[in-house]
Amino acid sequence: MQSVMSSGPSLEADSVSILRSIIPGLESTKHKGQAGKIAVVGGCREYTGAPYFSAISALKIGADLSHVFCTKDAAPVIKSYSPELIVHPILEESYSIRNEEKSSISAKVIAEVEKWMERFDCLVVGPGLGRDPFLLDCVSNIMKHARERNVPMVIDGDGLYLVTNCLELVSGYPLAVLTPNVNEYKRLVQKVLNSEVNDENGTDQLLSLAKGIGGVTILRKGKSDFVSDGKTACAVSIYGSPRRCGGQGDILSGSVAVFLSWARQCAAKGEVSMNPTILGCVAGSALLRYAASMAFDNKKRSTLTGDIIECLGRREKEGKIDF
Amino acid sequence: MQSVMSSGPSLEADSVSILRSIIPGLESTKHKGQAGKIAVVGGCREYTGAPYFSAISALKIGADLSHVFCTKDAAPVIKSYSPELIVHPILEESYSIRNEEKSSISAKVIAEVEKWMERFDCLVVGPGLGRDPFLLDCVSNIMKHARERNVPMVIDGDGLYLVTNCLELVSGYPLAVLTPNVNEYKRLVQKVLNSEVNDENGTDQLLSLAKGIGGVTILRKGKSDFVSDGKTACAVSIYGSPRRCGGQGDILSGSVAVFLSWARQCAAKGEVSMNPTILGCVAGSALLRYAASMAFDNKKRSTLTGDIIECLGRREKEGKIDF
Repeated sequence: MQSVMSSGPSLEADSVSILRSIIPGLESTKHKGQAGKIAVVGGCREYTGAPYFSAISALKIGADLSHVFCTKDAAPVIKSYSPELIVHPILEESYSIRNEEKSSISAKVIAEVEKWMERFDCLVVGPGLGRDPFLLDCVSNIMKHARERNVPMVIDGDGLYLVTNCLELVSGYPLAVLTPNVNEYKRLVQKVLNSEVNDENGTDQLLSLAKGIGGVTILRKGKSDFVSDGKTACAVSIYGSPRRCGGQGDILSGSVAVFLSWARQCAAKGEVSMNPTILGCVAGSALLRYAASMAFDNKKRSTLTGDIIECLGRREKEGKIDF
Repeated sequence: MQSVMSSGPSLEADSVSILRSIIPGLESTKHKGQAGKIAVVGGCREYTGAPYFSAISALKIGADLSHVFCTKDAAPVIKSYSPELIVHPILEESYSIRNEEKSSISAKVIAEVEKWMERFDCLVVGPGLGRDPFLLDCVSNIMKHARERNVPMVIDGDGLYLVTNCLELVSGYPLAVLTPNVNEYKRLVQKVLNSEVNDENGTDQLLSLAKGIGGVTILRKGKSDFVSDGKTACAVSIYGSPRRCGGQGDILSGSVAVFLSWARQCAAKGEVSMNPTILGCVAGSALLRYAASMAFDNKKRSTLTGDIIECLGRREKEGKIDF
């Protein structure tokens, strides 16, 4: 049993202990799937990199299977990035369908996702999703089904746009994790707390926000990442990298999905006492920061998101994490 | 002439001797094709990684030519993974055709595959095949033609789903190799022996199963791999890797196809006395395990299937296999 905080009054989570406590053993008796089956819902005509980054990060961290549910146009491109992913071309955007087809296509989408839903340990909703109203409507349905089946969800990017406009999709669902950046956080605070972001009482406001959405877990990204489920709050401030190339948030969402799944396995066995969604956020944030730091040491200003992904599985240079 | 078993009562195959005995010499007098021409039948709208892994593994092990017969939607993606493969976009799924086209398309598919059939040393049927009924119907026809021409077949994944539902496709065909995982094996045992998997008499049950399907060879995958043709049985227990990322079964099917082809060449020259399908299974299993072990040493938990494929051609570190 570990404490989420390091000693002293600091908010800083003891992320190394948390990582150690939730990373599962690698045993030859295990079979395919036991180390995690993740699905990313995202990828449209405009965006294909984001869902790839999220899904491949999940595999590199140690999940066994990583799926992507995306639009028909996005699928061949995402597939071609890597044969390691299972990519389902099932979503549709308004431009490609007629009005009278909408209800039948919507039903088909949900039937297709439902076939798989029970097999997933966690969904990531949002990377490269876009904002097409019909597509977002289908994704809302997917989220409702996931919730009915108690499948955890990490929500990022355009998934946060959807959720901010329709809070009941996640409100009161303790297995929902929101990972807002500065702007997404600002909109959430405005919508839920009807106020502006207040950095002087940042922790209190984060606690109120998570509580205000009925105890979802929020990972507020920034120079330090702050995590709260409305009851407790902590921070991850390990130095990562000064590079801000696009895509790092996608690594984080895939990473949180895997660690959250592992933390839930530990919780089911009574091996951890903290909320597994908090543990997943802390571990995901910490690992991204370690990997970003290693990538930056090597590539400096030319570091790209793919370089950071290549560092996800490396042993931490100072020997802190024996991954 | 080698023995399939190591000395003593153990089931363990002497896989190093088997590998040595069937790997052909690399001679500059040989021409393209003599080291093996493999074809993978698989790849549909949903799955493209699996046939790629199988086909590229065959090349990396040493085959000269590796073809893929897949659906029209899957072909551009599989082609994009590697220019080394020859990819034929000839299969169709129900969604893309009208009912009245089915018989003409089916005839066209078989005519197209027939043009190539005689050139192949082995087919791999199943990686990423999917379960579309029309597509499976076409693949059944391909299997019948392959059998008429005495082309060996390694059957995995959805090919096993097809075969389990239609045993006569392989029953009594000594050049068929089935490579079931835990679940696929369970379904085969239920269908053929009308019983549940019995691990106490695992070897006897495997012998009965192989005999029950008329002497096909079965490679039962697991912590140890077990191989039987209904007359003899052996095991491969070399330590591989604790990583269970999806796709390793596809490496195995491609690998068995190549080794089986080489073993048949040896058998034709009287250089080996054991059933070449057994030799192919043992060699394929052993090589995958060596490669997985090498990849894991390097990449640990972030090992992906592609990393294992990169290790297929490496000389074994302890000098056991001079590949």
